[in-house]
Amino acid sequence: MKKIAILTSGGDAPGMNTALCAIAKAAKANGLEAYLVKEGYKGLYNDEIIHSDDIDLDAYINQGGTCIYSARFPEFKELPYRIKAAENLKKRGIEALIVIGGDGSYKGAQLLHELGVKTIGLPGTIDNDIASSDFTIGYDTALNTIVEAIDHVRDTARSHRRIMIVEVMGNNCGDLALYSGLATGAEIIATSEYTLSVEDIVAKAVELTKQPNRRSIIIVVSEKRYDIQKLQDAIQAATNWQTRTNPLNHIQRGGRPTASERVLASMLGIKAVELLLDNKSGLAVGVINNLVQAFPILEALSMQNNSKAKAITRAIKYNKHNQY
Amino acid sequence: MKKIAILTSGGDAPGMNTALCAIAKAAKANGLEAYLVKEGYKGLYNDEIIHSDDIDLDAYINQGGTCIYSARFPEFKELPYRIKAAENLKKRGIEALIVIGGDGSYKGAQLLHELGVKTIGLPGTIDNDIASSDFTIGYDTALNTIVEAIDHVRDTARSHRRIMIVEVMGNNCGDLALYSGLATGAEIIATSEYTLSVEDIVAKAVELTKQPNRRSIIIVVSEKRYDIQKLQDAIQAATNWQTRTNPLNHIQRGGRPTASERVLASMLGIKAVELLLDNKSGLAVGVINNLVQAFPILEALSMQNNSKAKAITRAIKYNKHNQY
Amino acid sequence: MKKIAILTSGGDAPGMNTALCAIAKAAKANGLEAYLVKEGYKGLYNDEIIHSDDIDLDAYINQGGTCIYSARFPEFKELPYRIKAAENLKKRGIEALIVIGGDGSYKGAQLLHELGVKTIGLPGTIDNDIASSDFTIGYDTALNTIVEAIDHVRDTARSHRRIMIVEVMGNNCGDLALYSGLATGAEIIATSEYTLSVEDIVAKAVELTKQPNRRSIIIVVSEKRYDIQKLQDAIQAATNWQTRTNPLNHIQRGGRPTASERVLASMLGIKAVELLLDNKSGLAVGVINNLVQAFPILEALSMQNNSKAKAITRAIKYNKHNQY
Amino acid sequence: MKKIAILTSGGDAPGMNTALCAIAKAAKANGLEAYLVKEGYKGLYNDEIIHSDDIDLDAYINQGGTCIYSARFPEFKELPYRIKAAENLKKRGIEALIVIGGDGSYKGAQLLHELGVKTIGLPGTIDNDIASSDFTIGYDTALNTIVEAIDHVRDTARSHRRIMIVEVMGNNCGDLALYSGLATGAEIIATSEYTLSVEDIVAKAVELTKQPNRRSIIIVVSEKRYDIQKLQDAIQAATNWQTRTNPLNHIQRGGRPTASERVLASMLGIKAVELLLDNKSGLAVGVINNLVQAFPILEALSMQNNSKAKAITRAIKYNKHNQY
Repeated sequence: MKKIAILTSGGDAPGMNTALCAIAKAAKANGLEAYLVKEGYKGLYNDEIIHSDDIDLDAYINQGGTCIYSARFPEFKELPYRIKAAENLKKRGIEALIVIGGDGSYKGAQLLHELGVKTIGLPGTIDNDIASSDFTIGYDTALNTIVEAIDHVRDTARSHRRIMIVEVMGNNCGDLALYSGLATGAEIIATSEYTLSVEDIVAKAVELTKQPNRRSIIIVVSEKRYDIQKLQDAIQAATNWQTRTNPLNHIQRGGRPTASERVLASMLGIKAVELLLDNKSGLAVGVINNLVQAFPILEALSMQNNSKAKAITRAIKYNKHNQY
Repeated sequence: MKKIAILTSGGDAPGMNTALCAIAKAAKANGLEAYLVKEGYKGLYNDEIIHSDDIDLDAYINQGGTCIYSARFPEFKELPYRIKAAENLKKRGIEALIVIGGDGSYKGAQLLHELGVKTIGLPGTIDNDIASSDFTIGYDTALNTIVEAIDHVRDTARSHRRIMIVEVMGNNCGDLALYSGLATGAEIIATSEYTLSVEDIVAKAVELTKQPNRRSIIIVVSEKRYDIQKLQDAIQAATNWQTRTNPLNHIQRGGRPTASERVLASMLGIKAVELLLDNKSGLAVGVINNLVQAFPILEALSMQNNSKAKAITRAIKYNKHNQY
Repeated sequence: MKKIAILTSGGDAPGMNTALCAIAKAAKANGLEAYLVKEGYKGLYNDEIIHSDDIDLDAYINQGGTCIYSARFPEFKELPYRIKAAENLKKRGIEALIVIGGDGSYKGAQLLHELGVKTIGLPGTIDNDIASSDFTIGYDTALNTIVEAIDHVRDTARSHRRIMIVEVMGNNCGDLALYSGLATGAEIIATSEYTLSVEDIVAKAVELTKQPNRRSIIIVVSEKRYDIQKLQDAIQAATNWQTRTNPLNHIQRGGRPTASERVLASMLGIKAVELLLDNKSGLAVGVINNLVQAFPILEALSMQNNSKAKAITRAIKYNKHNQY
Repeated sequence: MKKIAILTSGGDAPGMNTALCAIAKAAKANGLEAYLVKEGYKGLYNDEIIHSDDIDLDAYINQGGTCIYSARFPEFKELPYRIKAAENLKKRGIEALIVIGGDGSYKGAQLLHELGVKTIGLPGTIDNDIASSDFTIGYDTALNTIVEAIDHVRDTARSHRRIMIVEVMGNNCGDLALYSGLATGAEIIATSEYTLSVEDIVAKAVELTKQPNRRSIIIVVSEKRYDIQKLQDAIQAATNWQTRTNPLNHIQRGGRPTASERVLASMLGIKAVELLLDNKSGLAVGVINNLVQAFPILEALSMQNNSKAKAITRAIKYNKHNQY
């Protein structure tokens, strides 16, 4: 193998750039040339492929987002598009492709693998919702961003004796809500796995406002589970405490990758290159129990995210715990 | 004078705690005892007054919010409430009160001054809307929080070729919008002083999307000027670029005070004590042209915020500038 | 069991305060009263024990250091001191003690366990050198502090084409050096486990300066392994590039705990209380393969830190990797 | 005028990249082409000049260092070198040069002005030692970096009852020491303008250790004023408190520019372009009393930094203040 390519796909996540750096370096260290595909599968189809030396990747090792961009491209589900994409690699002598993204991106990698392109998938998403890796690239940074935001909100809630609703990302996986809530002592946490009814939340809030020294209540909820405006109204009416909403939206996505993010992204990136050098393909790389491991993509996609039960148990526990 | 008291009033702002520290130290350095009033004028009326040694103020020098809390208390406009409040000070032998807050808080300080309590006002609000000080305690920190949030949003906007609307605080004063926009190269900035019509914003956005290399557009707007959901829809329809909203809400309020904030808060706090030692009262302290200065509160309240014209001129300039 | 106590011992670490919060809450949630011992074993001997309600622990959930302090107390190796310490607990009806610290602190906990005090140890040290836990409380925060410092240093090194030596903590365990080096693309990494000779470092640096586009070289070394001033002189003489030293010293210790730190500290703290409720004693709690686990302290102390071989292998790999 | 060039010179400072962005945009907004000179005057002499479109400047708006690099070049004092440099501009049709740097860089700009190149100087240095501007590009960021470092050090000092010496940059101007000391409540501050004798520092430290509740002492000193190792030994011997040194070195230089930094850099950069459009030359731009102003470079260089007396007065005041 002489040439490999990399693309980022799906939602951008901090650490994607770090992974690009690590892959480009690992390629060079092993005598491979690395190419960068712009805008994910869309750019692969449109032949937007540059040499890794054309960007100063080192300058992006600690930058959020993805410097090679991402884009939606549902057309990739259709075979002719994939054939064209594969040809764009082949005509440059590029034999392998590393794909950084989520489940949807993995599917594309599997389909290219079936067309004879050697592919390796890396878990890149802030949501931590990929079963074949304990942690995904982007999760630790997003968690820190959320925790810092909640810390800010706590300052003002405590100053004014207020209730604050904080809405965080993670529609399929409540880790961002659960662990940011634990880290900030959030009094009420409702995740994707453990959705409380509006009545439950209101009742808990009322209970909490009766505690003699309480000056603030933080409620962390996963996105798309509640109409937070209505939730605010219901809580405020029942508690008579000023209640405010804080949807964190897209500030959760960007930002400089944390140290652990960069360690994870680098280790996974290096492993991807090692697998290619070993002539492997159709694999998803992840970290399981602190070990970098690889699974067939098909197996990775079918893995039950067995953390669900654990997440519910923990949500129950932390909800109880944080009320004291 | 032997004893002074301090309270924080209005919206909490980072640096209020730093000012408390500075005042307590300056008091000790000059042989005064400092007291802390909890929950602003409400606590003053309710006699919630503690000694400054009862809190480890040093631990709060770099903490957001206000450790002595704030609260709404419209009743303070009525004389009997103020008389009771003044008596709560007098019965402890406290002759003077330093009030940290915004215009409304200054009015309370003036009314107490008229009742014979020596009062000094300090400008504490993130909005930078107090004419008697070039900068208010809280502004620099909030500006940094906003800028960091926009940086995050830029990362993801650029990765996906998106338009992002960021709504920031500052209903009476557009400084937060204007300067965060300048600092982040926001392509469109609509402030309290310089409100663009929805049509103008849409037209500008359409224009920008035609630039060949453009990958992102950031639109910063002051709060309460637009229905940002409708603005999003209008822009997305006209540009065909994905457009998202990011109301920053209460994350702008809290957070650790920046270095400049802490310098400002300390200098103003020290000055307040110096003025009291000098037997002054009814004054508002501010920083004008890098000098700490004091004005009669009534004069301070009537000062035209002459930065308005300047703000409009700058908004026009930066809007033009940032489109390149 | 009705009453438990907590102390922090050894070097302070970010997350210790978070653990205190979690333990106090878990205690309350289970009907226990929690006490805080000031200044570690020294305070235990000196009877410096307060109720957990005497400190606003919630305000410390995101603060560095330890709000109950730490201190050296070699006298604790002597039996009479320990007997007195145990009596100070007993006379208050406190049956159990949770100790947050390093190996030395664990030994004290074991000795108290042998005196009939129920003890649980939690791994608190930035060095990540406790074999019975994959990660220690403090490590993730310190790693982020170091990575941010190196990012700063990289900015200026690249601006001026310079070589920067960064000296980090971790005398017994090179994780801080190894992973901060990986995260920042440090070109040369010398850890506790993998110490390069001065000649090796100089030779590598010379080699790197010959790369045509190179503008900076970062060298991360574990503390106490080199005279960094002499190393600087040797490198500068051999490469003719300006070389500078950056001993990070105590800025690595403090600072707000990261999100992961706070998650780890909270989970370990909750587990410690659960073990006590379960009538366990003489155990060290840690996280192994993402699971919170407990080991007899004696076993924990004798566990080989088998990460040593792995650390060497990785140091060799990353040193090679980062030169590209 | 059709074409202008920009260079950064002297020590790198956060905000230099922001100024580059602002200048390039302002140039485009006014129909000018902007060029970038690499490595300061050295690159100007060596003809290392690229078009501003050759770098994605927008990606550097929030990055530390200088993406066009800096370098020492004492040869520029000799006329033939400057003539060659001026010719490198002329042959491209570049009529004007904006120089971002310190006093030494201003001198080069003046000499080029005398050769017929239109030049404008911008104050870029973390030290805040340029008399023609109240604040220099880089100062606010460095101050924040130092304050955060001292906050970290305070955490651990307080945990262990220690004395910490922090050595900061600013050999000609003690602002970094003075204001970081004020912002952190440093108990002893010795600046460039207000140097305490070792005996004085020791005596103050001894005094402070006698305060009953004191748990930490922070001593901030300007660089190159003390042998901090000897200072440590003297203090430790006299106080019997553990004392540690923390030279902050090059972590003070890099890092993301703060909001205020970016505002300042943008406003100064825009002004520089406006002056050139107005056919001005030989001017130094600065901010005085919150107004962007321009002075003849020769006048700027001869301006007394009259803040010296003020700095001494303040150092005396804050030293007294912070002991309480």
